[in-house]
Amino acid sequence: MQWTTQDFEWMTQALRQAGRGLYTTSPNPHVGCVIVKNGQLIGEGAHLRAGEPHAEVHALRHAGINAKGATAYVTLEPCSHYGRTPPCAHALVEAGVGRVVIAMQDPNPQVAGKGIAYLQAHGIAVSAGLLEAQALALNPGFVLRMTQQRPYVRVKVAASLDGKTALANGVSQWITSPAARRDVHHWRARSCAMLTGIGTVLHDDPSLTVREVESHRQPLRVIVDSQLRIPLTAKVLQQGHALIAYATASTNALEDKLARLHTMGVQTLALPNGAGQVDLSALLQKLAEKQINEVMVEAGAVMNGALLQTGLVDELLLYYAPKLMGAAGAGMFALPEYTTMSQSLALNIVDVRHFDQDIRIQATLR
Amino acid sequence: MQWTTQDFEWMTQALRQAGRGLYTTSPNPHVGCVIVKNGQLIGEGAHLRAGEPHAEVHALRHAGINAKGATAYVTLEPCSHYGRTPPCAHALVEAGVGRVVIAMQDPNPQVAGKGIAYLQAHGIAVSAGLLEAQALALNPGFVLRMTQQRPYVRVKVAASLDGKTALANGVSQWITSPAARRDVHHWRARSCAMLTGIGTVLHDDPSLTVREVESHRQPLRVIVDSQLRIPLTAKVLQQGHALIAYATASTNALEDKLARLHTMGVQTLALPNGAGQVDLSALLQKLAEKQINEVMVEAGAVMNGALLQTGLVDELLLYYAPKLMGAAGAGMFALPEYTTMSQSLALNIVDVRHFDQDIRIQATLR
Repeated sequence: MQWTTQDFEWMTQALRQAGRGLYTTSPNPHVGCVIVKNGQLIGEGAHLRAGEPHAEVHALRHAGINAKGATAYVTLEPCSHYGRTPPCAHALVEAGVGRVVIAMQDPNPQVAGKGIAYLQAHGIAVSAGLLEAQALALNPGFVLRMTQQRPYVRVKVAASLDGKTALANGVSQWITSPAARRDVHHWRARSCAMLTGIGTVLHDDPSLTVREVESHRQPLRVIVDSQLRIPLTAKVLQQGHALIAYATASTNALEDKLARLHTMGVQTLALPNGAGQVDLSALLQKLAEKQINEVMVEAGAVMNGALLQTGLVDELLLYYAPKLMGAAGAGMFALPEYTTMSQSLALNIVDVRHFDQDIRIQATLR
Repeated sequence: MQWTTQDFEWMTQALRQAGRGLYTTSPNPHVGCVIVKNGQLIGEGAHLRAGEPHAEVHALRHAGINAKGATAYVTLEPCSHYGRTPPCAHALVEAGVGRVVIAMQDPNPQVAGKGIAYLQAHGIAVSAGLLEAQALALNPGFVLRMTQQRPYVRVKVAASLDGKTALANGVSQWITSPAARRDVHHWRARSCAMLTGIGTVLHDDPSLTVREVESHRQPLRVIVDSQLRIPLTAKVLQQGHALIAYATASTNALEDKLARLHTMGVQTLALPNGAGQVDLSALLQKLAEKQINEVMVEAGAVMNGALLQTGLVDELLLYYAPKLMGAAGAGMFALPEYTTMSQSLALNIVDVRHFDQDIRIQATLR
């Protein structure tokens, strides 16, 4: 498939449109569309919220009757099924669009290709795969949920340059700069859920909300709390929209606490792994069932290490502050004792960035 | 003082000349000179080796009789005393140069300004301070030695992203990539001395020589070995040009070992600190007396931490490999247990660079 320079430019613009929904669109995917005729942009749109029109519909409305014979650039294969809105493939056919260029197919194997087939069956020239990697990168959680029934898991850690997340006495405020901490809120804003462990709740009492970024919603706060030790006054529970995963057997005291939590609007899930702890893989699967696309983890070394050992961590977001906190401080990841270098966990560094004097290293698991 | 664009350009060229001696000039400073007449370069030179002509002499020879009335750009104030070569200030006067632009004064407070005074007394227009910071950065060790009678100390560490320098069983080969390890040899090549602890010698048996970079000399290998435990077969001793600092009292066995080391050409220094260990501050002072400008430390967490606590570490060169080695691994710096964040050691990150998949963070102590 040969693409023209113009094709790249217009699809890039469609991807930029898709990015407009980064903080709002989930559980739906981020999708953008531009409609072009005679080298001129005549319509553009993005899918911004579940239940609201898809990107193609916004762009077609913008283009009006000019859409006839035009080319539509869409970052995701147009849907062909009736969901909360009518199928976009039908709308493109009805508008008389002549050509549709698609970045990526629908990742759901059950529906992938049906939108393309519908368009082609109605005489529209379709080509797919242009800037596919960029479109996938916009929707890592949606894609994983559709293909592997699990969310995308991003673990954030703030540490000193010698890899310490707290002093020996637990003091950790603040390691990084305000600029770095503000960046964290951008990542929270795009996440469907925040995940932490009971140790962090008891020690730091974080609220894990989006604050320094404008956002109309808050992520689900997920707490892994095997013994259900969480105080009802924990900040993370105060705004509702929280879920506690626990692993203990039922007792009267437990049932009483569960009832109180439910009264507060907190969800609970019993997910024992047989060793008295929460089954983290099962928890992630449950979160996917709840249409959670991206999970951001802000926890301590034990939870971070346990998640890494499930093999279900996709990305690390590591903020390093220009200080040395010393050997007695808390480490970043509790992992088993490795005896050969090949056992260590291999990463791919995908981005390095400065925030004031701090450095953010973004890495994926290899 | 107002400088012209041309002044900046020519001094930049003189600084580039000075850099030519980076691996060869010490214990002398790195100095460059260009001579310009009617907007044209007519001479340039660098000081490349102690005992050989200074930069100004090379540049004047290059310019010949054209030097009369020309402008000389020199990165360091021309010398006015008779050393191993005649004073450059005299040479500039004899050549009839009309103007001399200087980046930095001689850092030795005893001689600073004398070269400038000599030139001015002979009717030459002199201005100093152009790109002074860049000239200082070329000679951090020489400047410290002249002003504080100590060398510039650069501590290199290779670690995983979770701050580990070895697995729990001591395995550390290799954490970083060949590209990062090659970069280390560039820093070794510019160093007058390498410093390590007996723990590293016993465990890793490094040679601490310059290998992957072309170099006509090897740095002095300095080993801190309080109990003089070093085996005579240690690689670090095999090429001579080594110095062992120890702290034990004299015994027959000790004297015997010292005699054997001296026979091998190894220097020894008794520098007890009163607590059975080597006095690191005294050692650095001794190295400055031996005309050591830059010391590069490649050691373990204990030596790294001890040096940091002397307050005499100037720079950290931290290589991070994209892997996680786990909490059981060895840390980067053995430092005291801090109880408040303000006690942690504050750094300034001055450079971040990629070497293959590794990242090098260069930081100075704040």
